[in-house]
Parts: sequence; structure tokens; C-alpha cells
Amino acid sequence: MAARFDIISQGEELLAGQGVDTNAPWISSTLQGLGLLPGRVTVVGDDLVDIREVIAESAARSPLVVCTGGLGPTSDDLTREAAAQAFGLELDENADALAQIEARYRSRNRAMPPTNRVQALLPRGATLLENHLGTAPGFAIDAGRSLCFFFPGVPFEMYPMVEQYVLPVARRRFALAPRRTMMLRCVNLAESVAGQRMSGFEREGVTVGYRASFPEVQVKVHVAEGLDADALAREAVERLGSRHVFGVNTGPLAEVVGGLLRARGQRLATAESCTAGRIAADLTAIAGSSDYFVGGGVVYANAEKVRQCGVPAQLIAEQGAVSEAVARALAEGIARATGADWGLAVTGIAGPGGGSAEKPVGTVHLAVSGPDGTTHEKVRLPYDRPRNLGATVALALDLLRQRLLNTQSA
Amino acid sequence: MAARFDIISQGEELLAGQGVDTNAPWISSTLQGLGLLPGRVTVVGDDLVDIREVIAESAARSPLVVCTGGLGPTSDDLTREAAAQAFGLELDENADALAQIEARYRSRNRAMPPTNRVQALLPRGATLLENHLGTAPGFAIDAGRSLCFFFPGVPFEMYPMVEQYVLPVARRRFALAPRRTMMLRCVNLAESVAGQRMSGFEREGVTVGYRASFPEVQVKVHVAEGLDADALAREAVERLGSRHVFGVNTGPLAEVVGGLLRARGQRLATAESCTAGRIAADLTAIAGSSDYFVGGGVVYANAEKVRQCGVPAQLIAEQGAVSEAVARALAEGIARATGADWGLAVTGIAGPGGGSAEKPVGTVHLAVSGPDGTTHEKVRLPYDRPRNLGATVALALDLLRQRLLNTQSA
Repeated sequence: MAARFDIISQGEELLAGQGVDTNAPWISSTLQGLGLLPGRVTVVGDDLVDIREVIAESAARSPLVVCTGGLGPTSDDLTREAAAQAFGLELDENADALAQIEARYRSRNRAMPPTNRVQALLPRGATLLENHLGTAPGFAIDAGRSLCFFFPGVPFEMYPMVEQYVLPVARRRFALAPRRTMMLRCVNLAESVAGQRMSGFEREGVTVGYRASFPEVQVKVHVAEGLDADALAREAVERLGSRHVFGVNTGPLAEVVGGLLRARGQRLATAESCTAGRIAADLTAIAGSSDYFVGGGVVYANAEKVRQCGVPAQLIAEQGAVSEAVARALAEGIARATGADWGLAVTGIAGPGGGSAEKPVGTVHLAVSGPDGTTHEKVRLPYDRPRNLGATVALALDLLRQRLLNTQSA
Repeated sequence: MAARFDIISQGEELLAGQGVDTNAPWISSTLQGLGLLPGRVTVVGDDLVDIREVIAESAARSPLVVCTGGLGPTSDDLTREAAAQAFGLELDENADALAQIEARYRSRNRAMPPTNRVQALLPRGATLLENHLGTAPGFAIDAGRSLCFFFPGVPFEMYPMVEQYVLPVARRRFALAPRRTMMLRCVNLAESVAGQRMSGFEREGVTVGYRASFPEVQVKVHVAEGLDADALAREAVERLGSRHVFGVNTGPLAEVVGGLLRARGQRLATAESCTAGRIAADLTAIAGSSDYFVGGGVVYANAEKVRQCGVPAQLIAEQGAVSEAVARALAEGIARATGADWGLAVTGIAGPGGGSAEKPVGTVHLAVSGPDGTTHEKVRLPYDRPRNLGATVALALDLLRQRLLNTQSA
């Protein structure tokens, strides 16, 4: 039986519902990658007694505890004091911690404000864990039956600290075999279907985890050292359907598509009706996308389809704006107008209104025009408006990805 | 001292970090609206003993407990059994619960699958709470020192059940005065500044809560019955700065802007460089937006600014694409090209690359062209790429909102 871990997310704003807790899911997923099992996640506010009790209870329950938050310099930041009390330790100023905080300020050409001095207080005997990206040092307390880590709650400070300090120590302490993680990123595939297709794939030294981040599903394959991780990843891709896996350990779909365009030295333009800019937004979320993305049209009104892409008004009148012919004309028209190598277009009915018996809500036509012609796909999505639009973006980018993969480079 | 509540979010997928817990923040925020104080939130997986212990501990700690998840029909759904064990109760089939589940299936013209019969099991003596939107009934157990509610984890089923069943009972049990909540929705205002400006506003019968949902900050003013909630809301708007409050108890900013356009019978087009479709996406997230939004251009490449909006290439060469002159030309050009009454344009440097000493990352020019001329705003945003883009969308929509408010209707 694998060792269990507890997570504590400290912060009144989390407890009060002023934000969602994204730290705990990240930590949980990361520690499971080692082969550990999640026990409990507790969210606790800015109350010294509450924090102390949660730390003591978690340490009594699980051999590994990771706590984030409450290490700042203000009077609301009580985790140092609570940790000391939970383990019956004194709180001392740690000279190394103080030096690290002062150095952080010096590196920004500022003097350390006196209020930040409290961040150098550590429970006696705790191990100092340097924070390379912020002023709040972390620390670890080894209470024998439980090893407890304390990190700042700022995600981009906490992530590297967990990777640097928790993972190697946890591997040694719980005698976990080193593993490689292959993240298979899928679109156009339900999580339940992914689970069915991966059923029976787990074996000695191979575990599988899932994470749904609509419209994407991520399948993580954890492989023990000594096994052929690449071969196992290929087998997993085969099971999931290579059509659905847009990347293994890659960035998001828009980045994969962008990489394919960049490698070909080709450029893309978009013409979006129902998605109204969401595909362009996804593409330009990737820094450097101006190398291959020129822009395009938000052709929401039919008049804009005519004006921007030269879609014949008669075609819209005869076939309807949501039709294969109009999708094709949009893709070809925007490529022609912009001079881009590729045109990507969508037109559909996102809902909740606008559906008919013939063209129900969720009907979407996608088209890609490129150097070797135009392809089209029609789908019928079953979601609400926001998810229909999100799924359409992924389907459109994936249709373009398929075309780029299947097209001879110029 | 107000009564405290505990929240339990049950579900292996939450514990495993396969998704973030949005139920607990919503419940916490809703119960605080009554005047109750949050105690702890615990996330627990699909383990009978764990769930039972968390329920027993929460009930021992807090006079009100709300638990979501684990009421489905599969073997993973253990909350019914855990709740019964936590309070030493038998689990019985409840005839009314069974009838409700069967009726739900009948209303969809389907027969209840035999597996769903377990959803009619309730701890003996529990109060059945009908679920009008799904098959999993909720229930409540009054354990004397603690009142515990159990609801399905599906958010859109759970929300109305909390409102229907928890709020009135909690008001009575904890003798909470009825309150009205005024939600002031703000943009272009940091949460810390909002907090400073509202400092001293709280008084007998008036409490304030904050929720940051970048780039928006929501200030909730809870007002006891008998006080003049509207006058208090006006005072709060005054304190926050009426410039920053785009709505009180309204929908999102794009909906408010859309309502103003609709009321005037006017239409809008967008020309987006750095935001590349994000403004259009926000506008069209509102169903019915085709009444006032025609579309526009994603003018990412400079050539597209020239082609789509008639921005002189020489102007771009002289002033740079990120400049007041280009922003104005984009807004005017897109309105002219589309025939829309209003043109909204942005051009900026979202980062991480592309900045210079003269035009650092975060520099954004916004322009609105309308029936009575063109206005311009320049900002310098301090965030990373995604947040610079998100803030730009809000600033652009808000600039248009100001213009619409200050412009005489035609």
C-alpha cells in the first residue's frame, strides 16, 4: 500500500470562496505522479487555532503533509506560528532565512522593509527551504511519523519549490522508484471513453491518471525506471487512437499547430462566425504566434461573411449561414483576402437559441483551405453554449493539425 | 459570534486534482451572505472510512455542515452509507425518494435503471430533499448540535438545492436576520484598493465581502432587513468610484455594454490587434449578441491593419503599430468598413517579448469611434501575457461603456 499525503491550503480568501484553490489539485496530481496516494485536502482560514489543529491532525494521519499559504509578512500570516505550536516548537529567527530575504530585496535594488523580518522566523529545528522567486522562505519539519512541508501560497513560487524539495525527499523516504511521466494530450475524446480504452493498460510499474480540462483530456502514463517509456507511450497512443492524441509532453493544441505552421514557414488566417475570435485568441495565447498567424475576420453577421470573405449572399440565402458551402467559402475567402497559406473557418449554432429541426443547436461546420484544397467537417455538439464554443475551437485547430500532418511540405 | 459552517467536497477526482473544487467556494460565499462564518473546507475521496470520519469531525466542530458529492448510483458513491455510519443510523429505502427518482426518469420518457434504486437509500430519520434537476435526492440529518446537509456534486443541481433547503432553515436555526445582497461589479480597480475604499463602511446590519475574478472585482454588500439597501449601494458605489462600478446585481461587463447598445438600437464592430478576438469572444458569450454585434477584424499582422481598417502603412511605419494614431485609425476604419455605429479597437504589447524602453510590455492603446467622434486611452499594464490581455478586454469594454453612457441617444 502506497503512502498517503495530506494537503493543507491556508488562506481566508480560499475558505471564504473569494477564489478557487488551484494549489491543492496541482500538488495532488504531482505527488500522485511519484506513486503516492492522496488522503485529504483541507482548506483553512486565517485563524491560529484552526491552522494549528489542521496541521496536527494532518501530521497524525499521513506520513507526508504539504501546506501552502500563510508565510507572508502581515499579521494574517500565521502558518509559521501555527506549525511551531502544532509540534511544540519554539519560533526562532533563522539567520540564513533572513539573509535570503535580504538578498531577494537587494536583487531588486530595494532594502528589506522591517515588516518582512518576521518571514525569517522558523520553528526550531525546521529545515529552511529557499524560495528563489519570492521573499517567503519555505521550511520542512520532520516529525518522525510525518514529514511536513510549508510553502508560500503564490503558485509560481510554490511549484518549483515542491519540485525541488518535496519530490526527491519523498522518493527517498517512501522508497519510490523513479518514474517517467508521459502526458498524452487528447481532444475530441470523452474522459470516460479514454478510461475504457486504457482499461487493462496498467501493469507492474505502469500507472495511469486522467485529468479533464474541457475540451481537452490529459492521460498521464507513469512508467517505472527500467521500462521502455517511449514504447509504452506509443502503445497508449494506439489505444486512445492516434487521431485523438495531439501531443505527448507537448504544450497546448494551439502551440502544436503553431509549431507545424512555423516548421513549414506557412501562415494562417481565420474566419470565425459562432466562435467569434476564440480560435484567434487561442492561437495568439502562444507567444511568438505573429510568426505564423496573420489575423482574420470575426464574421458574426452574415453581411460580414459576404464583405470579408466574399461569400455570395445568394449562397447564404440558399444554404443558410450554417452550412458546408458557407464554411468552405469562408475558409477559402479569408485565405484569399489575407494572402495566407491556410484559411480556417467555422460557422455553427452555439445555442441556446437559433436551432431548428433541420439544424439543431450544436450543429457546426468547420473548413480548412490550404495549398492542396479545402476540407470540411460537420459535427453536432451536445453541450451548452460556452462548451459548444470551446469544443468547436479544439475541433477546428485539430482539423487544421490533421491537414498539416497530411500535407506534403512545400 | 456568528455560527460557523463546515463544507465537505466529496469526490476522488477532486482529491486527485483532476479538477478544481468550485462547489465549496460557491457554498462558502452563499452562506457568508447569510451572516455565517466559514470554518473548514475538506476535500475527501471515495473511501468510506475517510468520508465517515470527515462527516463526524465536521459535525462535531460546526453547527452547520454542507456536503456535496457521492450521491450517484455507482459503487464509488459512498456518501449515503458514510453519513449513516457517522451518525450511527441504519440506511433504509425511502419510498418518497424512490418515487421522485422514478418520476425524473418518466419525465424523460425512460424507465429507471435498477442501479439507480440505491439513490433512494437514506439514513433513517433523515429529511428527504427533492432534486428537481437530477436523479440524486439530497437529504438532511439533524444531529442536535449540528445540522448536516447532503447534496449531489453536480453544480447546477446543487446550487438551487442549497438556496431552497439550506438558506431558509439556517436563517431560522441561527436566528439570522434576512439580508439583501447587492453585488457591485468593478473593473479597473484592484481588490486591495476596493478594500481600502470600503474601510469603515461596515456597520450594524451591513457587512462587506470581496471576490476577485480577474480582471473583475466583486464587492458584495449584505444589508439587514429594515435598512435602505439601495441607499447603501449608492454610498458604496460612491466610495468605490462610480467610474469603476459597471453594474449592481447585473450580468458581466459584456452584457451591460450589450444592453446599452441594444437600448440605443446601435451596432458595434471590433478591430483587435493584441487581444486578437478576445473582445469579440466576450461580447458573443452573451446569447442574443448578434442583435448589436456585427463582428470585425482580428488585425494581428500590420498588413491586416492596413487591409481591413485602411490604416495608412506610413502611419504604422512612423508611429508604430502600438500608438494612439493607429488605435484611432483602427476604430474608425472598422466602423467605416462594417457600417457599424461604433468601432472598438485595441493595439498593444502583451508580452513577454516585443517591449522596448519607449513602449514597454504592457503598453496598450484603446480607441472607441462613435457617432460623436473618437476617444482614446493609453494604459500601461503590469501583468503577464494572459492577464495583460484579460485586463485589456475589460478596459476596452469599459471605455465603450463610458462612451455609451455619456453619449446622447440618437
